[in-house]
Amino acid sequence: MKIAIMGGDGFVGWPTSLHLSNAGHEIHILDNLSRRWIDTELGVQSLTPMDSIQERTRIWHAETGRKIHFHLIDLARDYELLKNWLAEERPDAIVHFAEQRAAPYSMKSDRHKNYTVNNNVNATHNLLNAMVELSLDAHLVHLGTMGVYGYSTVGAAIPEGYLSVGIETMDGRTVEQDILYPANPGSIYHMTKCLDQLIFQFYAKNDALRITDLHQGIVWGTHTDQTRRHAQLVNRFDYDGDYGTVLNRFLIQAAIGYPLTVHGTGGQTRAFIHIQDSVRCIEIALNNPPARGSKVEIFNQMTETHRVRDLAQMISSMTGAQIAWLPNPRKEAAENDLVVHNEKFLALGLEPTTLKEGLLDEVVDVAKKFAYRVDRSRVPAVSAWTKEIATSVNRDPEGNQLKSVS
Amino acid sequence: MKIAIMGGDGFVGWPTSLHLSNAGHEIHILDNLSRRWIDTELGVQSLTPMDSIQERTRIWHAETGRKIHFHLIDLARDYELLKNWLAEERPDAIVHFAEQRAAPYSMKSDRHKNYTVNNNVNATHNLLNAMVELSLDAHLVHLGTMGVYGYSTVGAAIPEGYLSVGIETMDGRTVEQDILYPANPGSIYHMTKCLDQLIFQFYAKNDALRITDLHQGIVWGTHTDQTRRHAQLVNRFDYDGDYGTVLNRFLIQAAIGYPLTVHGTGGQTRAFIHIQDSVRCIEIALNNPPARGSKVEIFNQMTETHRVRDLAQMISSMTGAQIAWLPNPRKEAAENDLVVHNEKFLALGLEPTTLKEGLLDEVVDVAKKFAYRVDRSRVPAVSAWTKEIATSVNRDPEGNQLKSVS
Repeated sequence: MKIAIMGGDGFVGWPTSLHLSNAGHEIHILDNLSRRWIDTELGVQSLTPMDSIQERTRIWHAETGRKIHFHLIDLARDYELLKNWLAEERPDAIVHFAEQRAAPYSMKSDRHKNYTVNNNVNATHNLLNAMVELSLDAHLVHLGTMGVYGYSTVGAAIPEGYLSVGIETMDGRTVEQDILYPANPGSIYHMTKCLDQLIFQFYAKNDALRITDLHQGIVWGTHTDQTRRHAQLVNRFDYDGDYGTVLNRFLIQAAIGYPLTVHGTGGQTRAFIHIQDSVRCIEIALNNPPARGSKVEIFNQMTETHRVRDLAQMISSMTGAQIAWLPNPRKEAAENDLVVHNEKFLALGLEPTTLKEGLLDEVVDVAKKFAYRVDRSRVPAVSAWTKEIATSVNRDPEGNQLKSVS
Repeated sequence: MKIAIMGGDGFVGWPTSLHLSNAGHEIHILDNLSRRWIDTELGVQSLTPMDSIQERTRIWHAETGRKIHFHLIDLARDYELLKNWLAEERPDAIVHFAEQRAAPYSMKSDRHKNYTVNNNVNATHNLLNAMVELSLDAHLVHLGTMGVYGYSTVGAAIPEGYLSVGIETMDGRTVEQDILYPANPGSIYHMTKCLDQLIFQFYAKNDALRITDLHQGIVWGTHTDQTRRHAQLVNRFDYDGDYGTVLNRFLIQAAIGYPLTVHGTGGQTRAFIHIQDSVRCIEIALNNPPARGSKVEIFNQMTETHRVRDLAQMISSMTGAQIAWLPNPRKEAAENDLVVHNEKFLALGLEPTTLKEGLLDEVVDVAKKFAYRVDRSRVPAVSAWTKEIATSVNRDPEGNQLKSVS
């Protein structure tokens, strides 16, 4: 297949591009490289030394003989460029990662809220709009998030995207309807993924576009079989308070002798998936497109759930790291249960890579190898969800006054 | 109260501004005047000769001694201007009409789809974002649409915004949750109003903003008590295929001897409200803000429902006009029932102005008075919902080839 990877320079986009190129597909990365600009804005960098996208694709070609094409296109701002590119190349499938993906970044300031809404809504809508305009019957696979689901505190297992509800009719019958699981996003970032869902629903219904939405958990790990092939193919590794995600952050904190930063009671239960499984899931989704005219296909892309404080305790006993209990900068339930259905990927052959399989060591190895590159001042999470919370969350575990860089 | 009317130069915005000014409030209209620009783009004009907003407010002052302030600000594009204005004036309440509001216009071309999404989402989000940034505890009243509701074909009465659903828990209990009524929008325009709903839900939850969302039916009529006070205070009257709405269009068609254009079987049932009731409802909503921290208050702002072909037959027998049965440019159910709960406004004192009360005559009078201004070529609805439909909907009732002006 000819596959366009929108946002293919990112944390999951890059290993996905390699994985699908290795599987024999013709890969085109479209990316505005915004993630690299945001590193510059925040004054942070990937723990792993990461080459330019041009250099990475050159190494991949030298290593494998396969070409990955790169096109500098901004989906959200360059509608005409995007449309012209799609008209010329007419890919068979499109994987859409081209969104700002950090909840803390999305809550940093009014400017960051506007940027996230603008970028994410327009990127998604421009893409669908252009597909319809060009009568392009490509299968669109979108990376969504588990964070679109709400009401997880009531103790119900989360189905794969749809909830069957009974609606009472005027003549006293109850009609069962499959509805999108009620949205209850926890941040501006998560909200944009809920907006995406409605946009997908509309375009699937009105224009019969074939769309798969992957509700992904927190991705951990850094290597895949393909990123391991050469030092310069290494994936990015974010440890900062905005883009670093909980499990990877704990591991780097342990590696540099920084207390594990648990916010609130640590009673938040989260869904996880290893990056190698993430790229496999995307491949499985590509191989199983919905029929034209059917509703949006939704998979829960996660393999296990853990409570944040349990993860901290596990890593603490593994490494001897201390735990720092900090106020929570997020507005969320202190404790929640989370049970998630993921039978669809399992039925299609996914074999989960779980935390227990010792792959944690791999991340610890990465963390130790590049520990000299860590800027400790960038480790704390400083983006607060409201102004009231911001005034109470102002010291890091080492007692330093924190300041948002916004 | 000091009230900001975003989009106060529009069809409902203008009479709302007059009504609230007359009631003693300090009124500030913020508008980018986009509706006038779109008239220019489409080569259409209001049936009623409409003065500039500056002239209208001058006449209002001369007539009543009251001032309505006008500020040329684009909510979607000028975030900083908007924020500075709000910081300076700190209104007690904000009425938000500042969105592109025609479904056919939103479906005209890829450019019009992008414009509608961009304009509507950014206008709404910029406004909420600025309110939070400024800690502005103003009550926000938004004009939404009945079109956000889905599943009206199953024969269930539509509640006021929320649906109670039972969610099965893992331990076998059923927990009742109030969720936003499942969205099932019929056009890009309607979709943006569904996106608005999720944005409101997020800001009410995260930042405790006080928000009222009015799910309005199709507004008919043209005069209110205040627009009648002077010829130059007259409201706009749209009869073209994009902005004209069904009842007003039938009346102007009857007045100029043009066949009443019924699309499909005319079996679509729609909700209606007279413009005088619309401005009263907005005043009632302003007087009954939700408590800080509570969920978004939702009213269904409509007073009666009618099937489109019944309306056509009523006006045909009233006026002798012929009915033209045309293919439907929209992708929608051919026939649907619609029963809508509107008890909340009735309980707060709304006394509906119904079609039966002879107010139809008033619209016919307007239509006849200004019939000389009608451009017959602009009467047909030419925006099609999909490319397939576009190729089949191409002749007007007089047999002329139709062409979209996009």
